[in-house]
Parts: sequence; structure tokens; C-alpha cells
Amino acid sequence: MVAVKSVWQKGFVDSGAPQEEHFEIKETELSGVNADNQPEEDGAVVVEVRYMSCDPYMRGFLKSQGRPAEEGKKIVSAFVSGVIIASRNENWIVGDLFGGSLPLSTVQVVPAKAVAGLWNLSKYIGEENLSQGIGALGMPGSTAYGGFIDVLEPKEGQTVFVSAASGAVGSIVGQIAKNVYKCTTVGSCGGQAKCDHIKSDFGYDYAIDYKSIDQSAADKGAAELKAKLKEAVPKGIDMYFENVGGIHFDAAMSSLRPKGRVAVCGGISGYNDKEGPKQVLDILSMIYTAQRIEGFVCTPWLTGQQGNFLGDMSQWIKEGKVKVEETTYNGVEQWATAFNSLFENTHRNKGKVVVKV
Amino acid sequence: MVAVKSVWQKGFVDSGAPQEEHFEIKETELSGVNADNQPEEDGAVVVEVRYMSCDPYMRGFLKSQGRPAEEGKKIVSAFVSGVIIASRNENWIVGDLFGGSLPLSTVQVVPAKAVAGLWNLSKYIGEENLSQGIGALGMPGSTAYGGFIDVLEPKEGQTVFVSAASGAVGSIVGQIAKNVYKCTTVGSCGGQAKCDHIKSDFGYDYAIDYKSIDQSAADKGAAELKAKLKEAVPKGIDMYFENVGGIHFDAAMSSLRPKGRVAVCGGISGYNDKEGPKQVLDILSMIYTAQRIEGFVCTPWLTGQQGNFLGDMSQWIKEGKVKVEETTYNGVEQWATAFNSLFENTHRNKGKVVVKV
Repeated sequence: MVAVKSVWQKGFVDSGAPQEEHFEIKETELSGVNADNQPEEDGAVVVEVRYMSCDPYMRGFLKSQGRPAEEGKKIVSAFVSGVIIASRNENWIVGDLFGGSLPLSTVQVVPAKAVAGLWNLSKYIGEENLSQGIGALGMPGSTAYGGFIDVLEPKEGQTVFVSAASGAVGSIVGQIAKNVYKCTTVGSCGGQAKCDHIKSDFGYDYAIDYKSIDQSAADKGAAELKAKLKEAVPKGIDMYFENVGGIHFDAAMSSLRPKGRVAVCGGISGYNDKEGPKQVLDILSMIYTAQRIEGFVCTPWLTGQQGNFLGDMSQWIKEGKVKVEETTYNGVEQWATAFNSLFENTHRNKGKVVVKV
Repeated sequence: MVAVKSVWQKGFVDSGAPQEEHFEIKETELSGVNADNQPEEDGAVVVEVRYMSCDPYMRGFLKSQGRPAEEGKKIVSAFVSGVIIASRNENWIVGDLFGGSLPLSTVQVVPAKAVAGLWNLSKYIGEENLSQGIGALGMPGSTAYGGFIDVLEPKEGQTVFVSAASGAVGSIVGQIAKNVYKCTTVGSCGGQAKCDHIKSDFGYDYAIDYKSIDQSAADKGAAELKAKLKEAVPKGIDMYFENVGGIHFDAAMSSLRPKGRVAVCGGISGYNDKEGPKQVLDILSMIYTAQRIEGFVCTPWLTGQQGNFLGDMSQWIKEGKVKVEETTYNGVEQWATAFNSLFENTHRNKGKVVVKV
């Protein structure tokens, strides 16, 4: 019998930062396999998960959305990467490296109908870089890639503003923008150390420390952030990559040039509130400027329906155009600690937060 | 000497409906021509304006935007159509029919550098249909065409919601959507008579009378409008063509399906306020739904940079797919009356309001 460790959440927490007590590890035995640990179902595979992702959007899982509090709930979809250890599917052989969105369990049978959702990483990386399957070659990488290239539609020499610029997504957006598309780049992040870091390592020409801004009143905070943006790029911005919401959205909209585009990918500033951030929008100002605001998720690029994400990104990594930075937490037991760290103000993480199983 | 009548505005009016006293007609003599009434400047043309447009967006001209009140100010850019009566430009001959954005003067010399901004209508219509040059074959037509086709990107069978559906733009959007793109169409307009009219004549499957909605509180008004939308199209809308703002925007956003698009073309509900309508936007709701909000103006389509507006639209008119309806005011002296009627609640106008010089 094969022992399996899974991450469960304990009930729901509508507001406030998540805590370790909101999660637990449960141990079970692997089911869905025969005595030889081969999948019982034709077309299924057995996978060993090596890396588990924790990402800000997962804060949404904890919200009750009207559901009653429960005893516990397995986390059934999260980005992971790993190795195929048994296969009854003609597209996969033992030893193949994969990325996917699966339950947070260390070993599991992936049912036949879910196997198509995995992506094969063997062509692009070796086992030593498997963590990239939940980072630059996974959800955050494809979010940066699709959002910047196909939603923001950059032109050489244009200016992009990125919030959460030192994070898993923002650190890649900056590098693609600077090193591939030759854009002017402005990033916002928390603290002087991160500001220095995104300029030296993530392709940012200018960095704004949003923690230095008085956010006690939203209007005042947005005006101050706008002033800092103007100081960096007096002519305004052509594109805004939105990860944060709140004053960042307001400041970006009021700095957006004619034909400006906003790609909305996240709004972490509101994730710990019961309801998401509500922004005030002057729609008339968007008419003569022909401005656009567009929400998106990474799926079309991650699944290969649009663009050439895995090929392009792995090439850019090889060429040094995109550097990968990770903060690693060791052991599945550390998943809750790693996840909670995303919402802390200690800023101990750099780049993508990965949990090495 | 040639007598010229021009429409002038008297000072600025920041808020409230415009009145006739805010405009006056001034008479002058044509300048810039020689004794034979030929243009003095090489490359210039002399035009006789036959139709003058008045459109809701022109309310913006009256706003002071911090300027001091003035004695008077000629209206220097408005959509007009007419006939070339003298030419020193190789692209135009006497008798050619044109559309353009020019000062509101009955006869005028168009300087060489401005001639490129005129569009030639002779290929598409005869003199008897010259009013279409400020309507279906002018700004409103190209706004409906570009906004619906290239901003909203319709697919057959999808549902579009249009505000100000009986107006110059909305009446054409409905017909293109229904008769060319085979979409399901829902229009909003004021009063039961207009509701009946847009269903029988402008391609609308469903009509909502927004005047029947209690708008004393914005939240309540938006909820009521949303309920009426849901009654018409229970599965929601794929596209929203925004001419109005206010509760229409709110109701549309909360009825918008995944991958929904909003084309922002106007916000007449706020034109008589000093500041435009401010909408509250839940940006997080746009992420997983991959929704888009985009402002636009007609210029790329009207000038032929994008699409085949004049060719397509004149063909659709010939085929009866787009019916043209106009309310005509006779005489340049009626321009102010015609313009002011756009903001009245008497709803005496149908379709495009045109001033026949």
C-alpha cells in the first residue's frame, strides 16, 4: 500500500488573513490502483507530486459563499508538478514530467478524463527544474505570458506598469516586457529591498515602494501613487498589469494614456475581505482615449490553445531573458505556512513560492 | 459676395440641459475665395453644407473646463454633409458629395490640409440621400458599425443589449446585430411607443422601457433593470453597447456572461452633469469570466483605416437590412432647437436628428 498525504482546509474563513490552523494534513492510502500499483481504470495514470503551488487566488477557496461551515474539505484543485509513476494512457510513459491542476495529494491516480488537462514538461526541462512546472512554466508563467502579450498587446518602446512586481507573475512580466519586448517598465512592490531587487533582477527600469504611501484614505493613497508614477514616467503608461486592485487600479487608470490597456489578473488587496475590491470607474474617460480593461485567466495559454507558451518561455529561460527565482518551503506539512506567507507583510518571500513535497 | 450663416455658442454651461439661448446664428461673408468664388489656396475646396448634425456628445462643447465665460464661440467641429461647389484639389470635382467634420457654417472654404478629412459619398448615394452622410453613412453609422463588429466581436446567436436603442446609433446597432449577424437583441429606450417601434423597425427582439423603472435610488434602479433584462434573456447577455451609463452600465455588468464584452460609446445620462457618470466596478468579477470593457470612437472606421464601413453600410441599406430613420429640422436657425431636443424627455425625435440647411 502507498501512503498519501493530502492538504485539507478546515471550514471557511470569509475575511482576515488565513492562518495555519485553517489547514491540516490528512494521511490515507492510495486507492484506485491494483496490487501492482497500476491504475485500475484504463486511460488513467498514477503521479507522484514533487511540487505544490500556493497562489494568492487560492484565498477564494476559504470563502464560505453562503455554505455552512464544514468539518473539513480536501483542496481539490491546485497547481502541482511531478513525475508519472504508472500509466495506462498512451500519451504518457513512466518517468514523464508533468504540470497540472490536481488535488493537493502527494501521490494520486489521475482519472482518464482528467489526464488531458496535464501538460508534458519532459521536452522542456529536466527533473532538477521541475519546480518551474508550478512557476515560470506553469500558471504564473502563462499568466504573465498571455496577459502581457495577448491582453496588453505591447509595442516596442511603450510603458507598462506592473503591481506586485516582485511576485511570481510580476517578476516574469517585467522580464518579458524589458528583455523580449523592449518596453519601459515600472513595478510596484513593498519595501526598498524589493524595489532594488526588481530593478537589478526582474527587468524593471523604475520601482515604486507602495508601503511608503499613506493609504489611510483611498483617494489620498491613489493620488500619491499617481504622483510617484508620474515622477518615474512623466508621459504616463500605455499598459497596466493588475495584480492588486485598490489604489493601484485608481492610480493606473488616471495615468493611462490614450489607447491604454489594462489586464486584470488579480486583486490581492481585497482577497482577505469578504467582498472583492470595488473600483470607481469614469467610463466616459475611456471613450475618446479608446481605453480597454480586460480580465483574463491563464488557461488558453497554459493549455496551448493560444500562443506558444511552453516553447517560448523555456527558450527565454535558456537564453537568460527570464530568470527564475523561487522561495522554497520543504515538506507538504509546510504548505499552510507557505500559503499564509503570501498574505503577510514580512515580505520574506522572493519570486515564486514553492512547496517541495 | 456669398452670405454665410454660422452657429455660435454663447459662453459655457457646465450643468443642466442646454437651451436655445445658449446658441445664436451669426451672418458673415465668405472669405478665402477670389472674385470668382474659387479658393485662394491651392488644394482647398469650397463646400456648400446641406445637412448639419447635432449629437449628444456635443454637450461637452458647452462645458467650461475651467475656461472663463466668453462672449461667444463658433462651433468649429461638427459632422456635416454637402456638395463641393468649387475645387482646387485634384481629388474633388464640383458636384461631388461629401461628409466631414467641419465648422457649423452654411458655406465655407475647407483648407488644403483639412480636405483629406472629408469622405466622398458620390459612389454610395445620390443628392436626395445626402442626409445619410451625417447619419447611417456618417458618425452614427460608423460608430454602430465599428463598435458592434470590431469592439464587441459578435458571434451568431449571441445576445447583445443596447441602450438608447431608438437613437441614431442604437437603431443601427440593432439592425446590424439582427439582420446581418443573427444575434438576439435587447434594446432599452424611453416609453412604450419607442419600445414598440424598435421591435417593429430596428431589429430588436425585446424592448425595455427604462422610463418605467424607479430610478430614485441607483441601486434599486439597476436591480430593476437587471430583472427586466433577465426576464427578456434569462441566460444573460454576451455584449453590451453602452450609450447611456448609470443604471444601464450596472445592470449590464451584472448580467454579463463569461467572455462578455462592453463597448463604451457614450454616457448620455451624465452629459448634463458637470462631471461624467462614475460607475462602481468589481474588477475581480472580470477575471475568471475574462470580460472586457472597451471605449472607442468611430474615427478608424469612418476614415477607412479599419473595416469597409461605407461599402458595407450602403449595401445593407440597399438590401433593406438597415433602414434609415430621421427626424428633420428645417433651416440652420433650427440647429439649437434640434440639439436641445436630444436632452428633452418629450421623446419627439425618432432615429437620427438632422438639420437641413
